Parts: sequence; structure tokens; C-alpha cells
Amino acid sequence: MANPTAAMLVIGDEILSGRTRDANMYHLAGELTKIGIDLSEVRVVSDDHNAIVRAVSELRAVFTYVFTSGGIGPTHDDITADCIAASFKVGIDSREDARKALALNYENGEADFNEARLRMTRIPDGATLIDNPISHAPGFSMENVHVMAGVPNIFAAMVKNLLPTLDHGAEVVSDSFRADLSESSIAGPLGKIAAAFPSLSVGSYPFFKEGKHGANLVVRGTDAAQVAAAIEEIRITFEP
Amino acid sequence: MANPTAAMLVIGDEILSGRTRDANMYHLAGELTKIGIDLSEVRVVSDDHNAIVRAVSELRAVFTYVFTSGGIGPTHDDITADCIAASFKVGIDSREDARKALALNYENGEADFNEARLRMTRIPDGATLIDNPISHAPGFSMENVHVMAGVPNIFAAMVKNLLPTLDHGAEVVSDSFRADLSESSIAGPLGKIAAAFPSLSVGSYPFFKEGKHGANLVVRGTDAAQVAAAIEEIRITFEP
Repeated sequence: MANPTAAMLVIGDEILSGRTRDANMYHLAGELTKIGIDLSEVRVVSDDHNAIVRAVSELRAVFTYVFTSGGIGPTHDDITADCIAASFKVGIDSREDARKALALNYENGEADFNEARLRMTRIPDGATLIDNPISHAPGFSMENVHVMAGVPNIFAAMVKNLLPTLDHGAEVVSDSFRADLSESSIAGPLGKIAAAFPSLSVGSYPFFKEGKHGANLVVRGTDAAQVAAAIEEIRITFEP
Repeated sequence: MANPTAAMLVIGDEILSGRTRDANMYHLAGELTKIGIDLSEVRVVSDDHNAIVRAVSELRAVFTYVFTSGGIGPTHDDITADCIAASFKVGIDSREDARKALALNYENGEADFNEARLRMTRIPDGATLIDNPISHAPGFSMENVHVMAGVPNIFAAMVKNLLPTLDHGAEVVSDSFRADLSESSIAGPLGKIAAAFPSLSVGSYPFFKEGKHGANLVVRGTDAAQVAAAIEEIRITFEP
């Protein structure tokens, strides 16, 4: 049976402005691959209501799961929760379970809430919370959409809590061989090997360093014996 | 006048499988910001014909420019050029200018071409070439879609050749202030400052390190004096 599919939606100007290099995409991609959920698409959009709503609505209709990162903090540019509510056409308000979770941060509990803190407890109607063991402002799951923080260590902690609760597929195993040849010498024989193993994904990732061509040839699949057989075929074909 | 907008489409399984961490997105985002082209969306899709064609067709209809990376090499999984031709509904074939460029790699020129090398000279009808000074397999521009290699140093070289030929806007300048406060203390006053400078983008990028909350407050805009004024306001408000 095919593995469940997933999309990730990264929300915020940080990557689009070139200010920071992505970390959450890389982390989630690795974790999903390990448990047999196929990450099929990633989108990065800015803190723009219409852009976020459109992306959420498109992706949740197509993929088994959608994972979002970013935009659930207390500042004016944190609009993800409202966009999720708009995509699902449900209400949104401060909720008691979220207030209880966030209150763990403060000496006097909810008595220490200000408007900004209260904002982080606004959850779309019908969603369930995702625990945030680090800063206690929760994420949430709304049907197949899982909404998490953008701060990398908090994102990773939420992913760790969430993934064991999801249906997943067969673990994808991979192996690779580094060929010190140009891709144009590799292409013909590699295409034949890929065709001989139709259940596997066979990729060629070229590099060009210090004046020399090369490519990492990567085989992925859920059948470890097939992966090993394909890599052996590749090794025999391309080793010097 | 508003700056031109752009989308980037990253093509290939490398990032989606968690095998590699993005480099091209980060590079392009920084270069576009410098010259006043607003990167508004990034998509990452796998080596799948329908997924690539759909993304190209959607993005080129919405944004001033679309930049793609990946999938123009010689192997079986390199299908970007065909997908661009399909999106524009034009033919595609090996072209003399592309053959001449690629032939620079080989002692006997085009006489050394094999099927894989010839594949890299297939260019959609009506496109113009983007020079590849490193490995000579060209990228190409088809109307507002600019197709480049995925290998990071070749991608960067193509971007360097391409960007000076495009219309661009006013350079975006930015400045930042690091506040050692939780975002929930920052949110109220920062929202007021953002509202007072409507021509600027004011962002808050929280972090949580060694048990301490903090946020980098970043101001961006095309008017350097306004950016400086907003940062001064932020400094006065949030410095300890």
C-alpha cells in the first residue's frame, strides 16, 4: 500500500527575505521519511492572510497531512490560527485548555496574562492541542492540518509529540554510491538500472567541485533487499 | 511604485526526502532582496511531471518572475525542460546554440555527444539561453520563467548572469534589534510601532535558548531614513 502523503507550509517572511536559512523543512523532511510519510510538496509564503488561507485550502484538499510552521506567536504578524479558522470556515476564540497550558509559564498563572499572551490561546473551533513542552504556547491539529511553532527547537518538540499519533507507512530506507564521473556518462546506464527496479526511487545528485564532476547516486524504497540489490548493480556499473 | 514580485520553484526529491538542506532558496532570497525583487512564495516539488507543470503554470500567472532550480541535467529524473514546454504548450528539441555551448566541454566538441549530453541541449521553442560558465549546460528563460541548474555553485553562477538583465525595484534595506524579552511582552508596543510605520515591514523572530526568551526585531523597507527611525523607536522602547 502506498505511504500517506504530506505537504509542509512554512509561514513567515524570514526565509523569503533571505534573513535565515531553513531549518524546520529539513528537520520535518527527515522525520517523515523515517516513518514512511511521503513529503510531496513544500510551500513557503509570507505573513499574508490571503496567501496563507489559499495555500492551506489547496494543500489540505490534496494531501493526507499538512504540517505548518510559524505565525502562532503573540505579535501582530502572527496570523496563522486565524487563517486556519478561515480556511475551515469555523470560529476562533481563546480556549480554556490553551489558557491552562500557557499559564504554566507564569508565577500567577492566568492572572499574569496580557492581551498578547491571551492571543496565543486562540484556537479554531474543533481543533485539538499539540503540546509545547518548551514554552507552553500550544500548537493544534484541525482535521488533517497540524499547526506548529516556527522557532526550531519548539517546532522539533511539537513534531516529536505529534508524529507518533499519526497513521504512517513503511519506513523508507536509502543507500547511496558516489560516482566520480560526469552525469552525462552516468545517465544511460543509470536509466536502465532505474527501469529495472520500478518499485524504487533512483536519483542522481550531481556536484562540481575543484574542477571535477561527480554525482551521488541515491536509491530509496521500502524493500531493503531491493535497495541493496540496486546499489550493488550501481556499484558494479560505476566503480572505477 | 511597488517592487516586482517573484516565486521560486525548487524541483527534485533531494530536499523533500530530507537528504540535503536547502542552499539555493537561501541564496536566491538574499540576492533578490538586495536588488528590490520581492520573493513572495517558494514551492518545492518532486521530480513529477504533473506536479511541476501545475506549479509552473500557477506561479507564472501570478508573479512577475518565476525562478526554477533543478532537473535540467542528463539523467532520467531530469524533466524540467519538458515540463516548461508543456506548461507553455510549445515544442522542445535539441538546439544549435545549446549544442555549441555544451560542446565547449569536450575535446572533439559535438562529436563527443552521447544521448545524455544531447538531452541537455533540449530547449523549449522561443526560450533564450542562460549562460553556465561552470559546466556549460545552459539554463534558459521562457517569457517570465527562468530555469536554472540545481547544483548550488552552478545555480549561483546562473543567477549572477541573469539578475542584471531583469527589471528590478528599489533596494530593500533592513536593520534589526535584539530584545531579551519574551514576545508576549514585546507584542503590544511593537504592534503600535508597526502601525506607525505603514510603509515598512516590521517582523519579530523569537528564539528560546538556554532557558531564555528573546526576539530579533527586524525592520525592512526601501526608505533608509524610515527604517532608521523605526529601529530607533524600537531601541528606545525595548532596551533594558
